[in-house]
Amino acid sequence: MNQFQAFHQQYLAEFNHYLDEHLRQEIKQPELQAGMLYSVEAGGKRLRPFLLLAALKTCAPQVNPRDYFRVAGAIELLHTYSLIHDDLPEMDNDDYRRGHLTNHKKFTVGRAVLAGDGLLTHAFSWLATTKLTAALQVKLIQILAQAAGPQQMVAGQMTDIVHAGDHLSVAQVEQLDAQKTGALITAAVLMGAYCGQASPQLRQQLQIYAQNFGLAFQIYDDLLDLRGNAKQLGKAVGKDQAAGKNTYPEVLGLKAARAQLTQALAAARAALALLPDSTVLLEDALAYFDLGAVQ
Amino acid sequence: MNQFQAFHQQYLAEFNHYLDEHLRQEIKQPELQAGMLYSVEAGGKRLRPFLLLAALKTCAPQVNPRDYFRVAGAIELLHTYSLIHDDLPEMDNDDYRRGHLTNHKKFTVGRAVLAGDGLLTHAFSWLATTKLTAALQVKLIQILAQAAGPQQMVAGQMTDIVHAGDHLSVAQVEQLDAQKTGALITAAVLMGAYCGQASPQLRQQLQIYAQNFGLAFQIYDDLLDLRGNAKQLGKAVGKDQAAGKNTYPEVLGLKAARAQLTQALAAARAALALLPDSTVLLEDALAYFDLGAVQ
Repeated sequence: MNQFQAFHQQYLAEFNHYLDEHLRQEIKQPELQAGMLYSVEAGGKRLRPFLLLAALKTCAPQVNPRDYFRVAGAIELLHTYSLIHDDLPEMDNDDYRRGHLTNHKKFTVGRAVLAGDGLLTHAFSWLATTKLTAALQVKLIQILAQAAGPQQMVAGQMTDIVHAGDHLSVAQVEQLDAQKTGALITAAVLMGAYCGQASPQLRQQLQIYAQNFGLAFQIYDDLLDLRGNAKQLGKAVGKDQAAGKNTYPEVLGLKAARAQLTQALAAARAALALLPDSTVLLEDALAYFDLGAVQ
Repeated sequence: MNQFQAFHQQYLAEFNHYLDEHLRQEIKQPELQAGMLYSVEAGGKRLRPFLLLAALKTCAPQVNPRDYFRVAGAIELLHTYSLIHDDLPEMDNDDYRRGHLTNHKKFTVGRAVLAGDGLLTHAFSWLATTKLTAALQVKLIQILAQAAGPQQMVAGQMTDIVHAGDHLSVAQVEQLDAQKTGALITAAVLMGAYCGQASPQLRQQLQIYAQNFGLAFQIYDDLLDLRGNAKQLGKAVGKDQAAGKNTYPEVLGLKAARAQLTQALAAARAALALLPDSTVLLEDALAYFDLGAVQ
Protein backbone atom coordinates (compact mmCIF):
# COMPACT_ATOMS: atom_id res chain seq x y z
CA MET A 1 0.00 0.00 0.00
CA ASN A 2 1.50 3.34 -0.98
CA GLN A 3 1.30 6.48 1.13
CA PHE A 4 -1.68 8.00 -0.69
CA GLN A 5 -3.57 4.75 -0.28
CA ALA A 6 -2.66 4.65 3.41
CA PHE A 7 -3.76 8.27 3.84
CA HIS A 8 -6.99 7.48 2.00
CA GLN A 9 -7.62 4.43 4.15
CA GLN A 10 -6.83 6.32 7.34
CA TYR A 11 -9.47 8.99 6.78
CA LEU A 12 -12.02 7.51 4.37
CA ALA A 13 -14.47 6.10 6.92
CA GLU A 14 -14.40 9.31 8.97
CA PHE A 15 -14.87 11.42 5.87
CA ASN A 16 -17.80 9.32 4.71
CA HIS A 17 -19.28 9.61 8.17
CA TYR A 18 -18.91 13.39 8.02
CA LEU A 19 -20.84 13.52 4.74
CA ASP A 20 -23.58 11.22 5.98
CA GLU A 21 -24.01 12.85 9.37
CA HIS A 22 -24.11 16.42 8.11
CA LEU A 23 -26.42 15.77 5.19
CA ARG A 24 -28.84 13.91 7.49
CA GLN A 25 -28.76 16.75 10.02
CA GLU A 26 -29.09 19.58 7.54
CA ILE A 27 -31.46 18.25 4.88
CA LYS A 28 -34.89 17.67 6.43
CA GLN A 29 -37.09 17.22 3.34
CA PRO A 30 -37.32 13.41 3.24
CA GLU A 31 -37.28 12.75 -0.53
CA LEU A 32 -34.52 15.29 -1.05
CA GLN A 33 -32.39 13.85 1.76
CA ALA A 34 -32.90 10.37 0.32
CA GLY A 35 -32.01 11.46 -3.21
CA MET A 36 -28.91 13.37 -2.19
CA LEU A 37 -27.65 10.63 0.16
CA TYR A 38 -28.33 7.89 -2.39
CA SER A 39 -25.79 9.26 -4.84
CA VAL A 40 -23.32 10.61 -2.27
CA GLU A 41 -23.21 7.14 -0.74
CA ALA A 42 -23.17 5.14 -3.96
CA GLY A 43 -19.60 3.97 -3.47
CA GLY A 44 -17.51 6.80 -4.88
CA LYS A 45 -13.76 6.64 -4.40
CA ARG A 46 -13.66 10.23 -3.05
CA LEU A 47 -10.77 10.93 -5.39
CA ARG A 48 -11.32 14.72 -5.58
CA PRO A 49 -11.66 15.36 -1.84
CA PHE A 50 -8.63 13.18 -1.14
CA LEU A 51 -6.59 14.99 -3.79
CA LEU A 52 -7.61 18.20 -2.00
CA LEU A 53 -6.54 16.81 1.36
CA ALA A 54 -3.29 15.41 -0.10
CA ALA A 55 -2.44 18.81 -1.61
CA LEU A 56 -3.24 20.40 1.75
CA LYS A 57 -0.93 17.96 3.59
CA THR A 58 1.79 18.56 1.01
CA CYS A 59 1.66 22.33 1.63
CA ALA A 60 1.01 22.20 5.38
CA PRO A 61 2.17 18.87 6.87
CA GLN A 62 1.21 19.94 10.40
CA VAL A 63 -2.54 20.37 9.80
CA ASN A 64 -5.24 17.92 10.79
CA PRO A 65 -7.13 16.85 7.65
CA ARG A 66 -10.32 16.52 9.71
CA ASP A 67 -10.41 20.30 10.07
CA TYR A 68 -10.86 20.51 6.30
CA PHE A 69 -13.52 17.82 5.83
CA ARG A 70 -16.15 20.51 5.16
CA VAL A 71 -14.09 21.95 2.28
CA ALA A 72 -13.28 18.49 0.93
CA GLY A 73 -16.94 17.53 1.37
CA ALA A 74 -18.06 20.51 -0.68
CA ILE A 75 -16.10 19.28 -3.69
CA GLU A 76 -17.60 15.80 -3.29
CA LEU A 77 -21.15 17.23 -3.17
CA LEU A 78 -20.36 19.24 -6.30
CA HIS A 79 -18.90 16.22 -8.08
CA THR A 80 -21.89 14.05 -7.13
CA TYR A 81 -24.33 16.63 -8.53
CA SER A 82 -22.42 16.60 -11.82
CA LEU A 83 -22.72 12.81 -12.06
CA ILE A 84 -26.47 12.85 -11.37
CA HIS A 85 -27.15 15.46 -14.03
CA ASP A 86 -24.72 13.90 -16.54
CA ASP A 87 -26.52 10.57 -16.25
CA LEU A 88 -29.96 12.04 -17.10
CA PRO A 89 -31.77 10.65 -20.14
CA GLU A 90 -31.23 13.80 -22.21
CA MET A 91 -27.54 13.87 -21.30
CA ASP A 92 -25.52 10.63 -21.25
CA ASN A 93 -28.61 8.51 -20.50
CA ASP A 94 -26.92 6.08 -18.15
CA ASP A 95 -28.87 3.50 -16.16
CA TYR A 96 -25.97 2.44 -13.95
CA ARG A 97 -23.20 4.30 -12.17
CA ARG A 98 -20.61 2.68 -9.92
CA GLY A 99 -22.61 -0.53 -10.23
CA HIS A 100 -25.82 1.02 -8.82
CA LEU A 101 -28.91 2.35 -10.57
CA THR A 102 -28.44 6.00 -11.48
CA ASN A 103 -30.39 8.52 -9.45
CA HIS A 104 -33.14 9.07 -12.03
CA LYS A 105 -33.60 5.33 -12.52
CA LYS A 106 -33.83 4.79 -8.76
CA PHE A 107 -36.20 7.73 -8.28
CA THR A 108 -37.51 9.88 -11.17
CA VAL A 109 -35.96 12.41 -13.54
CA GLY A 110 -37.61 15.28 -11.67
CA ARG A 111 -36.31 14.10 -8.32
CA ALA A 112 -32.83 13.51 -9.78
CA VAL A 113 -32.68 17.04 -11.16
CA LEU A 114 -33.58 18.36 -7.71
CA ALA A 115 -31.11 16.10 -5.88
CA GLY A 116 -28.42 17.51 -8.18
CA ASP A 117 -29.59 21.09 -7.68
CA GLY A 118 -29.57 20.54 -3.93
CA LEU A 119 -26.04 19.10 -3.89
CA LEU A 120 -24.68 21.87 -6.11
CA THR A 121 -26.13 24.65 -3.97
CA HIS A 122 -25.21 22.93 -0.71
CA ALA A 123 -21.56 22.74 -1.76
CA PHE A 124 -21.49 26.55 -1.62
CA SER A 125 -23.36 26.52 1.70
CA TRP A 126 -20.61 24.39 3.15
CA LEU A 127 -17.79 26.54 1.76
CA ALA A 128 -19.45 29.63 3.26
CA THR A 129 -19.82 28.06 6.73
CA THR A 130 -16.35 26.80 7.57
CA LYS A 131 -14.16 28.16 10.37
CA LEU A 132 -11.61 29.48 7.87
CA THR A 133 -10.98 33.19 7.39
CA ALA A 134 -13.49 35.06 5.25
CA ALA A 135 -10.81 35.85 2.66
CA LEU A 136 -9.94 32.15 2.28
CA GLN A 137 -13.61 31.17 2.09
CA VAL A 138 -14.19 33.65 -0.72
CA LYS A 139 -11.13 32.34 -2.57
CA LEU A 140 -12.34 28.72 -2.29
CA ILE A 141 -15.82 29.70 -3.52
CA GLN A 142 -14.29 31.60 -6.46
CA ILE A 143 -12.19 28.60 -7.46
CA LEU A 144 -15.04 26.11 -7.18
CA ALA A 145 -17.68 28.29 -8.87
CA GLN A 146 -15.40 29.14 -11.77
CA ALA A 147 -14.26 25.54 -12.27
CA ALA A 148 -17.71 23.97 -11.92
CA GLY A 149 -19.72 26.69 -13.63
CA PRO A 150 -20.51 27.85 -17.15
CA GLN A 151 -16.93 28.92 -17.84
CA GLN A 152 -15.62 25.37 -17.41
CA MET A 153 -17.44 22.22 -16.31
CA VAL A 154 -20.94 23.09 -17.51
CA ALA A 155 -19.46 24.48 -20.74
CA GLY A 156 -17.64 21.18 -21.35
CA GLN A 157 -20.79 19.20 -20.72
CA MET A 158 -22.74 21.42 -23.13
CA THR A 159 -20.11 20.97 -25.86
CA ASP A 160 -20.20 17.23 -25.18
CA ILE A 161 -23.95 16.84 -25.67
CA VAL A 162 -24.23 19.32 -28.53
CA HIS A 163 -21.36 17.71 -30.48
CA ALA A 164 -22.06 14.05 -29.76
CA GLY A 165 -21.86 12.44 -33.20
CA ASP A 166 -19.76 15.25 -34.72
CA HIS A 167 -16.07 14.77 -35.42
CA LEU A 168 -14.06 17.07 -33.20
CA SER A 169 -10.37 17.84 -33.61
CA VAL A 170 -7.83 16.71 -31.01
CA ALA A 171 -7.60 20.29 -29.74
CA GLN A 172 -11.38 20.46 -29.36
CA VAL A 173 -11.49 17.17 -27.44
CA GLU A 174 -8.68 18.40 -25.21
CA GLN A 175 -10.59 21.59 -24.43
CA LEU A 176 -13.84 19.72 -23.86
CA ASP A 177 -12.23 17.31 -21.40
CA ALA A 178 -10.15 19.98 -19.67
CA GLN A 179 -13.43 21.78 -18.99
CA LYS A 180 -15.64 18.82 -18.25
CA THR A 181 -13.26 16.76 -16.11
CA GLY A 182 -9.95 18.54 -15.63
CA ALA A 183 -11.30 21.77 -14.16
CA LEU A 184 -12.82 20.19 -11.07
CA ILE A 185 -9.72 18.04 -10.40
CA THR A 186 -7.54 21.13 -10.73
CA ALA A 187 -9.91 23.05 -8.45
CA ALA A 188 -9.60 20.32 -5.81
CA VAL A 189 -5.80 20.49 -5.78
CA LEU A 190 -5.78 24.31 -5.84
CA MET A 191 -8.29 24.52 -3.01
CA GLY A 192 -6.04 22.23 -0.96
CA ALA A 193 -3.06 24.43 -1.82
CA TYR A 194 -4.90 27.60 -0.71
CA CYS A 195 -6.01 25.91 2.51
CA GLY A 196 -2.36 24.98 3.07
CA GLN A 197 -1.26 28.60 2.49
CA ALA A 198 0.92 27.55 -0.43
CA SER A 199 3.16 30.19 -2.03
CA PRO A 200 2.27 31.28 -5.58
CA GLN A 201 5.23 29.23 -6.90
CA LEU A 202 4.07 26.09 -5.11
CA ARG A 203 0.50 26.67 -6.28
CA GLN A 204 1.69 26.95 -9.85
CA GLN A 205 3.51 23.60 -9.76
CA LEU A 206 0.52 21.94 -8.12
CA GLN A 207 -1.71 23.38 -10.81
CA ILE A 208 0.47 21.82 -13.53
CA TYR A 209 0.36 18.53 -11.63
CA ALA A 210 -3.43 18.74 -11.37
CA GLN A 211 -3.98 19.64 -15.00
CA ASN A 212 -1.97 16.62 -16.09
CA PHE A 213 -3.76 14.45 -13.54
CA GLY A 214 -7.04 15.61 -15.06
CA LEU A 215 -5.89 14.92 -18.60
CA ALA A 216 -4.65 11.46 -17.59
CA PHE A 217 -7.95 10.83 -15.81
CA GLN A 218 -10.01 11.45 -18.92
CA ILE A 219 -7.77 9.44 -21.27
CA TYR A 220 -7.72 6.60 -18.75
CA ASP A 221 -11.51 6.66 -18.43
CA ASP A 222 -11.88 6.62 -22.23
CA LEU A 223 -9.46 3.70 -22.51
CA LEU A 224 -11.25 1.78 -19.76
CA ASP A 225 -14.54 2.39 -21.53
CA LEU A 226 -13.08 0.92 -24.71
CA ARG A 227 -10.94 -1.88 -23.34
CA GLY A 228 -11.93 -2.45 -19.75
CA ASN A 229 -14.75 -4.47 -18.40
CA ALA A 230 -18.02 -3.39 -16.87
CA LYS A 231 -16.96 -4.39 -13.37
CA GLN A 232 -13.87 -2.20 -13.35
CA LEU A 233 -15.75 0.75 -14.80
CA GLY A 234 -18.94 0.25 -12.76
CA LYS A 235 -21.02 1.21 -15.77
CA ALA A 236 -21.84 0.05 -19.28
CA VAL A 237 -18.82 -0.53 -21.52
CA GLY A 238 -18.39 0.79 -25.05
CA LYS A 239 -21.10 3.35 -24.40
CA ASP A 240 -19.07 6.38 -25.42
CA GLN A 241 -18.36 4.85 -28.80
CA ALA A 242 -21.97 3.84 -29.32
CA ALA A 243 -23.10 7.38 -28.44
CA GLY A 244 -20.67 8.92 -30.93
CA LYS A 245 -18.82 10.62 -28.06
CA ASN A 246 -15.52 12.23 -28.89
CA THR A 247 -12.97 10.25 -26.89
CA TYR A 248 -9.17 10.27 -26.96
CA PRO A 249 -8.81 6.80 -28.50
CA GLU A 250 -11.39 7.88 -31.09
CA VAL A 251 -9.59 11.05 -32.21
CA LEU A 252 -5.96 10.04 -31.54
CA GLY A 253 -6.04 6.29 -32.11
CA LEU A 254 -5.44 3.76 -29.37
CA LYS A 255 -1.65 3.80 -29.44
CA ALA A 256 -1.33 7.57 -29.36
CA ALA A 257 -3.94 7.82 -26.60
CA ARG A 258 -1.91 5.43 -24.45
CA ALA A 259 1.25 7.40 -25.20
CA GLN A 260 -0.46 10.64 -24.18
CA LEU A 261 -1.61 9.07 -20.93
CA THR A 262 1.98 8.07 -20.13
CA GLN A 263 3.17 11.55 -21.08
CA ALA A 264 0.60 13.27 -18.84
CA LEU A 265 1.65 11.14 -15.89
CA ALA A 266 5.30 12.00 -16.52
CA ALA A 267 4.46 15.71 -16.69
CA ALA A 268 2.54 15.45 -13.40
CA ARG A 269 5.56 13.77 -11.76
CA ALA A 270 7.94 16.34 -13.22
CA ALA A 271 5.88 19.20 -11.75
CA LEU A 272 6.23 17.63 -8.30
CA ALA A 273 9.95 16.93 -8.74
CA LEU A 274 10.62 20.68 -8.93
CA LEU A 275 9.32 21.19 -5.40
CA PRO A 276 11.75 21.30 -2.45
CA ASP A 277 9.57 19.45 0.09
CA SER A 278 8.10 15.98 0.23
CA THR A 279 5.43 15.35 -2.38
CA VAL A 280 5.12 11.63 -1.85
CA LEU A 281 1.36 11.74 -1.19
CA LEU A 282 0.64 13.38 -4.54
CA GLU A 283 3.19 11.21 -6.35
CA ASP A 284 1.56 8.12 -4.92
CA ALA A 285 -1.89 9.39 -5.94
CA LEU A 286 -0.76 8.79 -9.53
CA ALA A 287 -0.90 5.04 -8.82
CA TYR A 288 -4.64 5.53 -9.39
CA PHE A 289 -3.79 4.96 -13.04
CA ASP A 290 -3.32 1.22 -13.59
CA LEU A 291 -1.59 1.16 -16.95
CA GLY A 292 -1.85 -2.62 -17.11
CA ALA A 293 -5.65 -2.34 -17.21
CA VAL A 294 -5.62 -0.33 -20.44
CA GLN A 295 -3.01 -2.24 -22.45
CA MET B 1 -45.94 56.27 -10.82
CA ASN B 2 -44.91 55.51 -7.24
CA GLN B 3 -41.37 55.75 -5.91
CA PHE B 4 -40.55 52.06 -6.29
CA GLN B 5 -41.75 52.16 -9.88
CA ALA B 6 -39.68 55.28 -10.51
CA PHE B 7 -36.62 53.64 -8.93
CA HIS B 8 -37.24 50.51 -11.01
CA GLN B 9 -37.61 52.57 -14.19
CA GLN B 10 -34.50 54.62 -13.39
CA TYR B 11 -32.20 51.60 -13.17
CA LEU B 12 -33.90 48.78 -15.11
CA ALA B 13 -32.27 49.35 -18.50
CA GLU B 14 -28.83 49.71 -16.94
CA PHE B 15 -29.34 46.62 -14.83
CA ASN B 16 -30.48 44.60 -17.85
CA HIS B 17 -27.46 45.87 -19.74
CA TYR B 18 -25.20 44.75 -16.89
CA LEU B 19 -26.64 41.22 -17.04
CA ASP B 20 -26.37 41.01 -20.81
CA GLU B 21 -22.88 42.48 -21.08
CA HIS B 22 -21.32 40.38 -18.33
CA LEU B 23 -22.90 37.11 -19.39
CA ARG B 24 -21.77 37.68 -22.97
CA GLN B 25 -18.24 38.49 -21.83
CA GLU B 26 -17.91 35.67 -19.34
CA ILE B 27 -19.73 32.73 -20.96
CA LYS B 28 -17.89 31.71 -24.12
CA GLN B 29 -19.48 28.34 -24.92
CA PRO B 30 -22.00 29.37 -27.60
CA GLU B 31 -24.95 27.08 -26.82
CA LEU B 32 -24.58 27.71 -23.10
CA GLN B 33 -24.39 31.47 -23.56
CA ALA B 34 -27.48 31.32 -25.79
CA GLY B 35 -29.42 29.19 -23.33
CA MET B 36 -28.55 31.28 -20.31
CA LEU B 37 -29.23 34.60 -22.07
CA TYR B 38 -32.50 33.35 -23.54
CA SER B 39 -34.11 32.92 -20.15
CA VAL B 40 -32.36 35.83 -18.41
CA GLU B 41 -33.67 38.08 -21.17
CA ALA B 42 -37.16 36.61 -21.45
CA GLY B 43 -38.84 39.67 -20.05
CA GLY B 44 -38.63 39.19 -16.30
CA LYS B 45 -39.72 42.04 -14.06
CA ARG B 46 -36.50 41.81 -11.99
CA LEU B 47 -38.60 41.90 -8.84
CA ARG B 48 -36.06 40.16 -6.60
CA PRO B 49 -33.01 42.24 -7.59
CA PHE B 50 -35.04 45.44 -7.26
CA LEU B 51 -36.31 44.39 -3.85
CA LEU B 52 -32.65 43.85 -2.94
CA LEU B 53 -31.70 47.29 -4.24
CA ALA B 54 -34.72 48.91 -2.54
CA ALA B 55 -33.78 47.33 0.80
CA LEU B 56 -30.22 48.54 0.26
CA LYS B 57 -31.40 52.11 -0.44
CA THR B 58 -33.67 51.96 2.60
CA CYS B 59 -30.73 51.05 4.86
CA ALA B 60 -28.09 53.20 3.14
CA PRO B 61 -29.69 56.06 1.19
CA GLN B 62 -26.30 57.47 0.15
CA VAL B 63 -25.11 54.42 -1.85
CA ASN B 64 -25.13 54.13 -5.62
CA PRO B 65 -27.27 51.11 -6.60
CA ARG B 66 -24.99 50.53 -9.61
CA ASP B 67 -22.24 49.45 -7.23
CA TYR B 68 -24.46 46.54 -6.19
CA PHE B 69 -25.61 45.36 -9.61
CA ARG B 70 -23.38 42.29 -9.34
CA VAL B 71 -25.06 41.22 -6.09
CA ALA B 72 -28.54 42.00 -7.45
CA GLY B 73 -27.59 40.21 -10.67
CA ALA B 74 -26.60 37.08 -8.74
CA ILE B 75 -30.10 36.76 -7.32
CA GLU B 76 -31.61 37.19 -10.79
CA LEU B 77 -29.34 34.45 -12.21
CA LEU B 78 -30.39 32.21 -9.34
CA HIS B 79 -34.07 32.97 -9.83
CA THR B 80 -33.83 32.36 -13.58
CA TYR B 81 -32.20 28.95 -13.01
CA SER B 82 -35.09 28.00 -10.71
CA LEU B 83 -37.64 28.90 -13.39
CA ILE B 84 -35.85 26.88 -16.08
CA HIS B 85 -35.66 23.76 -13.92
CA ASP B 86 -39.22 24.20 -12.56
CA ASP B 87 -40.60 24.31 -16.10
CA LEU B 88 -39.00 20.98 -17.12
CA PRO B 89 -41.33 18.18 -18.29
CA GLU B 90 -40.80 16.11 -15.14
CA MET B 91 -41.43 19.15 -12.93
CA ASP B 92 -44.24 21.58 -13.79
CA ASN B 93 -44.06 20.74 -17.52
CA ASP B 94 -44.68 24.26 -18.78
CA ASP B 95 -44.38 25.18 -22.45
CA TYR B 96 -44.62 28.93 -21.93
CA ARG B 97 -43.16 31.34 -19.41
CA ARG B 98 -43.64 35.11 -19.50
CA GLY B 99 -45.26 34.67 -22.91
CA HIS B 100 -42.19 32.96 -24.43
CA LEU B 101 -41.40 29.30 -25.04
CA THR B 102 -39.78 27.79 -21.97
CA ASN B 103 -36.08 27.03 -22.22
CA HIS B 104 -36.48 23.29 -22.85
CA LYS B 105 -39.12 23.90 -25.53
CA LYS B 106 -36.89 26.46 -27.25
CA PHE B 107 -33.80 24.24 -27.00
CA THR B 108 -33.86 20.72 -25.48
CA VAL B 109 -34.30 19.31 -21.99
CA GLY B 110 -30.57 18.52 -21.77
CA ARG B 111 -29.58 22.03 -22.76
CA ALA B 112 -32.15 23.53 -20.38
CA VAL B 113 -30.79 21.52 -17.44
CA LEU B 114 -27.30 22.82 -18.27
CA ALA B 115 -28.44 26.43 -18.74
CA GLY B 116 -29.97 26.20 -15.27
CA ASP B 117 -26.86 24.57 -13.78
CA GLY B 118 -24.74 27.30 -15.36
CA LEU B 119 -26.89 30.13 -13.97
CA LEU B 120 -27.01 28.61 -10.49
CA THR B 121 -23.25 28.18 -10.27
CA HIS B 122 -22.54 31.55 -11.86
CA ALA B 123 -24.64 33.31 -9.23
CA PHE B 124 -22.05 32.20 -6.66
CA SER B 125 -19.21 33.21 -8.98
CA TRP B 126 -20.62 36.71 -9.04
CA LEU B 127 -21.10 36.91 -5.27
CA ALA B 128 -17.48 35.80 -4.78
CA THR B 129 -16.08 38.41 -7.20
CA THR B 130 -17.57 41.70 -6.00
CA LYS B 131 -15.57 44.56 -4.53
CA LEU B 132 -17.25 44.14 -1.14
CA THR B 133 -15.33 42.99 1.94
CA ALA B 134 -14.65 39.27 2.21
CA ALA B 135 -16.80 39.04 5.37
CA LEU B 136 -19.78 40.57 3.56
CA GLN B 137 -19.28 38.35 0.52
CA VAL B 138 -19.31 35.25 2.71
CA LYS B 139 -22.48 36.46 4.44
CA LEU B 140 -24.26 37.04 1.12
CA ILE B 141 -23.23 33.60 -0.15
CA GLN B 142 -24.46 31.99 3.09
CA ILE B 143 -27.84 33.71 2.78
CA LEU B 144 -28.30 32.84 -0.88
CA ALA B 145 -27.07 29.23 -0.64
CA GLN B 146 -29.24 28.50 2.38
CA ALA B 147 -32.35 30.10 0.88
CA ALA B 148 -31.95 28.59 -2.59
CA GLY B 149 -30.57 25.22 -1.55
CA PRO B 150 -31.88 21.93 -0.16
CA GLN B 151 -32.88 23.48 3.16
CA GLN B 152 -35.40 25.81 1.52
CA MET B 153 -36.11 26.40 -2.19
CA VAL B 154 -35.12 22.98 -3.54
CA ALA B 155 -36.88 21.33 -0.57
CA GLY B 156 -40.08 23.21 -1.40
CA GLN B 157 -39.88 22.20 -5.04
CA MET B 158 -39.34 18.55 -4.06
CA THR B 159 -42.37 18.62 -1.75
CA ASP B 160 -44.36 20.25 -4.54
CA ILE B 161 -43.64 17.58 -7.15
CA VAL B 162 -43.81 14.64 -4.74
CA HIS B 163 -47.17 15.76 -3.29
CA ALA B 164 -48.88 17.01 -6.45
CA GLY B 165 -52.30 15.35 -6.32
CA ASP B 166 -52.19 14.79 -2.53
CA HIS B 167 -54.26 16.93 -0.19
CA LEU B 168 -51.96 18.98 2.01
CA SER B 169 -52.99 20.89 5.10
CA VAL B 170 -52.89 24.68 5.22
CA ALA B 171 -49.76 24.49 7.37
CA GLN B 172 -48.08 22.21 4.85
CA VAL B 173 -48.94 24.51 1.95
CA GLU B 174 -47.61 27.47 3.93
CA GLN B 175 -44.33 25.67 4.57
CA LEU B 176 -44.04 24.52 0.96
CA ASP B 177 -44.56 28.05 -0.38
CA ALA B 178 -42.35 29.69 2.23
CA GLN B 179 -39.58 27.38 1.05
CA LYS B 180 -40.27 27.41 -2.66
CA THR B 181 -41.04 31.10 -3.14
CA GLY B 182 -40.69 33.02 0.10
CA ALA B 183 -37.12 32.05 0.92
CA LEU B 184 -35.57 33.66 -2.16
CA ILE B 185 -37.62 36.86 -1.76
CA THR B 186 -36.56 37.05 1.88
CA ALA B 187 -32.95 36.39 0.87
CA ALA B 188 -33.09 39.28 -1.61
CA VAL B 189 -34.28 41.74 1.03
CA LEU B 190 -31.83 40.46 3.64
CA MET B 191 -28.92 40.64 1.19
CA GLY B 192 -29.85 44.25 0.49
CA ALA B 193 -30.00 44.92 4.23
CA TYR B 194 -26.55 43.40 4.80
CA CYS B 195 -25.11 45.39 1.89
CA GLY B 196 -26.64 48.50 3.51
CA GLN B 197 -25.02 47.63 6.87
CA ALA B 198 -28.41 47.45 8.56
CA SER B 199 -28.54 46.97 12.33
CA PRO B 200 -29.88 43.63 13.62
CA GLN B 201 -33.14 45.38 14.61
CA LEU B 202 -33.60 46.86 11.16
CA ARG B 203 -32.76 43.51 9.53
CA GLN B 204 -35.37 41.81 11.67
CA GLN B 205 -38.14 44.19 10.58
CA LEU B 206 -37.10 43.87 6.96
CA GLN B 207 -37.17 40.11 7.29
CA ILE B 208 -40.77 40.23 8.56
CA TYR B 209 -41.62 42.54 5.66
CA ALA B 210 -40.01 40.13 3.20
CA GLN B 211 -41.64 37.00 4.60
CA ASN B 212 -45.05 38.63 4.25
CA PHE B 213 -44.17 39.89 0.78
CA GLY B 214 -43.26 36.32 -0.15
CA LEU B 215 -46.49 34.92 1.30
CA ALA B 216 -48.53 37.57 -0.54
CA PHE B 217 -46.60 36.79 -3.72
CA GLN B 218 -47.57 33.12 -3.68
CA ILE B 219 -51.23 33.69 -2.79
CA TYR B 220 -51.45 36.38 -5.48
CA ASP B 221 -49.88 34.06 -8.07
CA ASP B 222 -52.30 31.28 -7.12
CA LEU B 223 -55.25 33.67 -7.39
CA LEU B 224 -54.06 34.97 -10.76
CA ASP B 225 -53.68 31.40 -11.97
CA LEU B 226 -57.26 30.72 -10.97
CA ARG B 227 -58.95 33.98 -11.87
CA GLY B 228 -56.61 35.96 -14.03
CA ASN B 229 -56.02 35.69 -17.71
CA ALA B 230 -53.12 34.19 -19.62
CA LYS B 231 -51.84 37.57 -20.73
CA GLN B 232 -51.42 38.89 -17.19
CA LEU B 233 -49.79 35.69 -16.01
CA GLY B 234 -47.72 35.09 -19.15
CA LYS B 235 -48.37 31.40 -18.89
CA ALA B 236 -51.17 28.88 -19.11
CA VAL B 237 -54.10 29.55 -16.79
CA GLY B 238 -55.75 27.03 -14.48
CA LYS B 239 -52.70 24.79 -14.76
CA ASP B 240 -52.08 24.43 -11.04
CA GLN B 241 -55.58 23.14 -10.51
CA ALA B 242 -55.33 20.72 -13.43
CA ALA B 243 -52.03 19.41 -12.07
CA GLY B 244 -53.52 18.84 -8.62
CA LYS B 245 -51.15 21.41 -7.15
CA ASN B 246 -51.76 22.52 -3.60
CA THR B 247 -52.62 26.21 -3.90
CA TYR B 248 -53.99 28.67 -1.34
CA PRO B 249 -57.43 29.02 -2.96
CA GLU B 250 -57.54 25.22 -3.10
CA VAL B 251 -56.83 24.59 0.59
CA LEU B 252 -58.31 27.78 2.10
CA GLY B 253 -61.13 28.60 -0.27
CA LEU B 254 -61.19 31.66 -2.48
CA LYS B 255 -62.50 34.12 0.09
CA ALA B 256 -60.09 33.15 2.83
CA ALA B 257 -57.18 33.18 0.36
CA ARG B 258 -58.02 36.77 -0.58
CA ALA B 259 -58.31 37.70 3.08
CA GLN B 260 -54.92 36.17 3.81
CA LEU B 261 -53.39 38.12 0.94
CA THR B 262 -54.76 41.37 2.39
CA GLN B 263 -53.51 40.36 5.83
CA ALA B 264 -50.00 39.59 4.58
CA LEU B 265 -49.79 42.99 2.90
CA ALA B 266 -50.93 44.68 6.11
CA ALA B 267 -48.30 42.78 8.10
CA ALA B 268 -45.62 43.81 5.61
CA ARG B 269 -46.67 47.47 5.97
CA ALA B 270 -46.78 47.20 9.74
CA ALA B 271 -43.21 45.88 9.84
CA LEU B 272 -42.05 48.95 7.90
CA ALA B 273 -44.11 51.34 10.03
CA LEU B 274 -42.00 50.42 13.07
CA LEU B 275 -38.85 51.75 11.42
CA PRO B 276 -37.65 55.30 12.15
CA ASP B 277 -36.40 56.19 8.66
CA SER B 278 -38.10 56.46 5.29
CA THR B 279 -39.32 53.15 3.93
CA VAL B 280 -41.29 54.55 1.05
CA LEU B 281 -39.47 52.46 -1.58
CA LEU B 282 -40.38 49.19 0.12
CA GLU B 283 -43.91 50.39 0.92
CA ASP B 284 -44.42 51.31 -2.70
CA ALA B 285 -43.07 47.92 -3.81
CA LEU B 286 -46.26 46.44 -2.32
CA ALA B 287 -48.20 48.07 -5.17
CA TYR B 288 -46.95 45.05 -7.15
CA PHE B 289 -50.07 43.35 -5.81
CA ASP B 290 -53.06 44.53 -7.82
CA LEU B 291 -55.95 43.44 -5.64
CA GLY B 292 -58.44 44.43 -8.32
CA ALA B 293 -57.02 41.77 -10.62
CA VAL B 294 -57.85 38.95 -8.22
CA GLN B 295 -61.39 39.94 -7.13
